[in-house]
Amino acid sequence: MKRNINILKIGSSIINDANSLDLFLSQFARLSEPKILVHGGGRIATELCGQLGITTKMINGRRITSTENLSVVTMVYAGLINKNICAKLQSYNCNAIGLSGVDANSILSAKRDVNPIDYGWVGDIAEVSVNIIQLFLANNMAPVFCAIGHDGKGQLLNTNADTIAAEIAIAMSHDFESRLIYCCDKKGVLADTNNDDSVIESISWAKYQGLKEKGIIDEGMMPKMENSFHALENNVSKVIIGNINVIDAENKLYTSITL
Amino acid sequence: MKRNINILKIGSSIINDANSLDLFLSQFARLSEPKILVHGGGRIATELCGQLGITTKMINGRRITSTENLSVVTMVYAGLINKNICAKLQSYNCNAIGLSGVDANSILSAKRDVNPIDYGWVGDIAEVSVNIIQLFLANNMAPVFCAIGHDGKGQLLNTNADTIAAEIAIAMSHDFESRLIYCCDKKGVLADTNNDDSVIESISWAKYQGLKEKGIIDEGMMPKMENSFHALENNVSKVIIGNINVIDAENKLYTSITL
Repeated sequence: MKRNINILKIGSSIINDANSLDLFLSQFARLSEPKILVHGGGRIATELCGQLGITTKMINGRRITSTENLSVVTMVYAGLINKNICAKLQSYNCNAIGLSGVDANSILSAKRDVNPIDYGWVGDIAEVSVNIIQLFLANNMAPVFCAIGHDGKGQLLNTNADTIAAEIAIAMSHDFESRLIYCCDKKGVLADTNNDDSVIESISWAKYQGLKEKGIIDEGMMPKMENSFHALENNVSKVIIGNINVIDAENKLYTSITL
Repeated sequence: MKRNINILKIGSSIINDANSLDLFLSQFARLSEPKILVHGGGRIATELCGQLGITTKMINGRRITSTENLSVVTMVYAGLINKNICAKLQSYNCNAIGLSGVDANSILSAKRDVNPIDYGWVGDIAEVSVNIIQLFLANNMAPVFCAIGHDGKGQLLNTNADTIAAEIAIAMSHDFESRLIYCCDKKGVLADTNNDDSVIESISWAKYQGLKEKGIIDEGMMPKMENSFHALENNVSKVIIGNINVIDAENKLYTSITL
């Protein structure tokens, strides 16, 4: 039987709340199974862009990444957020190793085609180096990935963190029972956005279509849902969406995504 | 007989000149012996501080690191510069892995005492993890260190890059013949700052005292010299100061530091 591996992803709603982040990281550190953390951090990047007078343009929730934007996201994701997260994890006796896709060539990306939309320096994942991640795990390290990749030709590329988490979960599924966990500030996907406890326990592909039609799943959630189904279609054992308590084995309130 | 290892350090004078940096990295990538790169990048950090309205204070060539300064250096060193250097090295088929001291707990630091000078979030190196660096080297990776450390309690610390290079060279000297190479924009330590070819071939501790008295070695060079002697006193086989051509085996023009 394959061993479990947990691939957890956190975004700005947790990163920007010091207490939530701290609680999450202390729980992540205690997970005894092999684990990988993937983080975003778009809000801090957008804030820094603002301070530097750099325009931020988003289309379908994705950042149009100019050369100036790329410098900012590289600084914020690979530098500020990644190293502070790893420092915290080290303080919790978790031997975190902060990585971008360029480090040890762990994730190779390809620049997204300029048609139909020119996203600028944005990459789609071409290959996750399972061997390198296995080496880190075998030596008791917990890889912490930021959402910066590279094309192998010297160019950094901004990559969606939800997608990185899904692709890592898929790549690791050859050797592990991969569990992909998207952590956000809600307890799961909500049937009623005004009621934090209205968590939909399970969403299948068919149910997802209905929820989209009814407008219950908004545009912001769609890429996460698409990544979830993509992961399940590619050998990932389990995908769940929840808040930071999702790590806690006692917690039963979250949304499971199923095929 | 021990194998050679090369620990090279580059600073702003090379990092800020795209052509020099590119040439240096292409040569570094071709080095067949085990190798480690350490980089600074203070000028870009100071520039970004300026753009953000954050004051930069220096004492004895060292940055007084406020909380805001620490965020900036973490972004610039661990993010922008480190990942761009690694991406370039990857494009030259060198399997670079970008690291801060926090990553895999590779370098543990201690916050510098506030007496006699309060440098803020500045660290002195407590321990270099030889095992981790050996693991990377044994797996054909080239570690690329930025000058950010941590105290093991969750706090990032700004650390002098020359010192990091020296301490890594010392730590690796148990298993290797360590060669520490400081690369700058000059061919070596110059007897006459107006004459780029007036390279002093060799500087011993005794000679260094004389050069200081005569004012030939200026304040900016002193920490590098002190680090060099410290390294030689602690098993490092060779310390040299030169420009980027120092990697080239044909080049004979550089300054050797000797005891």
